[in-house]
Amino acid sequence: MGDTTFFTVDELTARVEAILAKAGLNAVQAGAVARVVTAGERDGAKSHGIYRIEGVLRTVAAGKVNPNAVPELMADDGTAIVRVDAQQGFSPPAFALGLPALAERARRLGLAALVINDCTHFSALWPEVEALTGQGLAGLAMCPSYSTVAPAGGNRALLGTNPIAFGWPRGAGDPYVFDFATSVAARGEIELKRRAGERLPEGWAVDVDGQPTIDPEKALGGAMLPFGGHKGSAIGTMIELLAGIMIGDLTSREALDKLGTTTLAPMHGELILAFSPKIFAGNRAGDPFARAESLFDAILGQGARLPSQRRFMARARSKAEGIALVSAEIALLDRLLENGAAT
Amino acid sequence: MGDTTFFTVDELTARVEAILAKAGLNAVQAGAVARVVTAGERDGAKSHGIYRIEGVLRTVAAGKVNPNAVPELMADDGTAIVRVDAQQGFSPPAFALGLPALAERARRLGLAALVINDCTHFSALWPEVEALTGQGLAGLAMCPSYSTVAPAGGNRALLGTNPIAFGWPRGAGDPYVFDFATSVAARGEIELKRRAGERLPEGWAVDVDGQPTIDPEKALGGAMLPFGGHKGSAIGTMIELLAGIMIGDLTSREALDKLGTTTLAPMHGELILAFSPKIFAGNRAGDPFARAESLFDAILGQGARLPSQRRFMARARSKAEGIALVSAEIALLDRLLENGAAT
Repeated sequence: MGDTTFFTVDELTARVEAILAKAGLNAVQAGAVARVVTAGERDGAKSHGIYRIEGVLRTVAAGKVNPNAVPELMADDGTAIVRVDAQQGFSPPAFALGLPALAERARRLGLAALVINDCTHFSALWPEVEALTGQGLAGLAMCPSYSTVAPAGGNRALLGTNPIAFGWPRGAGDPYVFDFATSVAARGEIELKRRAGERLPEGWAVDVDGQPTIDPEKALGGAMLPFGGHKGSAIGTMIELLAGIMIGDLTSREALDKLGTTTLAPMHGELILAFSPKIFAGNRAGDPFARAESLFDAILGQGARLPSQRRFMARARSKAEGIALVSAEIALLDRLLENGAAT
Repeated sequence: MGDTTFFTVDELTARVEAILAKAGLNAVQAGAVARVVTAGERDGAKSHGIYRIEGVLRTVAAGKVNPNAVPELMADDGTAIVRVDAQQGFSPPAFALGLPALAERARRLGLAALVINDCTHFSALWPEVEALTGQGLAGLAMCPSYSTVAPAGGNRALLGTNPIAFGWPRGAGDPYVFDFATSVAARGEIELKRRAGERLPEGWAVDVDGQPTIDPEKALGGAMLPFGGHKGSAIGTMIELLAGIMIGDLTSREALDKLGTTTLAPMHGELILAFSPKIFAGNRAGDPFARAESLFDAILGQGARLPSQRRFMARARSKAEGIALVSAEIALLDRLLENGAAT
């Protein structure tokens, strides 16, 4: 297409980083956030790409994140828990700081947890679990979000969209990765449908009175529904308990009460578990990585797909051709660099 | 009702234990299995109550479980992983053996895992996570089963119904507990519908040709579907990876290949994670147990239920009145004691 420009990862990262730096983020914050924004664009995950920059700038402008935060790694206390205090900054630099300690702990103990406290959450969770698979570890990550989902059988927003992500390493190949909201749809998907003027599928949401709705606007003002009925609702509740309450950080309701809006990035914590398949398998027969490949082959062999396959295809295309942005997207980047977020 | 007899937990346990002992199980196997069967009846969880005894006896008669197994706790290797070799016996005595070590490890490290290998799985998973909540710990348990579920987008059985259970302690009250199959329905539910001559709701299963079916018989011969579409399918796959492959034990497909039937209890492994909320919360503000109560209050306050509420109500009734068995059920117990399993 004539109006498409191609960027390398480094070029787009630098461009996004410049926007964030101009908005006042220090180097550690701007760099880490720019890398996850660029990774989203690279993977064709538009709802986690440059579309998110404006929310970051709004959150900074509202004073709801510390743009000068330097995350702090707590000293090893002899447990399986690695703790990072994000110092009210964004989550990506806090995760990047904790990753080496988490990986080391998991290799030593077989199983370890990274607790990130007091972060403004920004990013999908797949960057976290993919960072672990890149080290030969399996990862399970979760966090609360904003109170926008009604529990099964209820009619008012209480739980968050509470994402959960899992990754399993596959050597030099793309890892097995899933990352999804425990609501039927992610809030970003509803927001994109609102912008596109489209209606929602049935079963996604209820309005402010607890009645089913297919109007994105009413859904955003009401409550979304959990995926899989009471089962998804239970998993969403577990995420509030483990990745909010247990780690001494905010629940989705507390996060919303604190900020009073869902248009700013939420502040809370995050929990990431890392497993060493090598340590777990121990002396048992069979190489776990080779056995996992047989399972994936069996899934693909019946015509089913692995999760994230589309994202990895987009990544391969971006690697070969560059990350494609259309002129309107480049104009957005220019505008954000020039003027910051619309107010 | 005139034909109902009431049993205490101890009376029913002894009655079930006598059946299992006569069928050849040693004391450690018979006692632990009888306790979980009785717990199922006590909780009104009929699909995990005395209905399951016949399957146990069939599995013993077929020589597919070691009735004389004495599970073995492996020495502490300095990791966060507690290992129990079930010695080809049933899972409940292996779990009972590993529980104290798992709880101690979780209290010390904040997070620990119990790996049970080479067990014939018998029991729902809620007895496991409730045993942890009874010690003030949160628990997350999972295991493969038999290859009876098609992955989302596929049309042939590959995954198991792969249950996942979670528990959060609530002091002296009933814990927060969920325990569900990652298929739309549990296999036992389809089996009960077959026995009752009922049809299945749509979306539960496909037949042997991969076509949707509402016939329980065809569903049992075909494949069940995962709950929540690709999300439930991804979680079911994660369970194969973590609680099968990673712990060096069988996947659902391997378990079925090994036994060649789903009428016997499956042999594989089990993974149980234990979390100490006290250690995780550390010096952070707020008591995690008190904060969790606020979350539960908010769920109940909008008319939604907590998972397992019905089971706990049945438990309270059993405690007050005794466990109610109708005459046909008592006749079943008599027949099983007299003749063992039907062949």
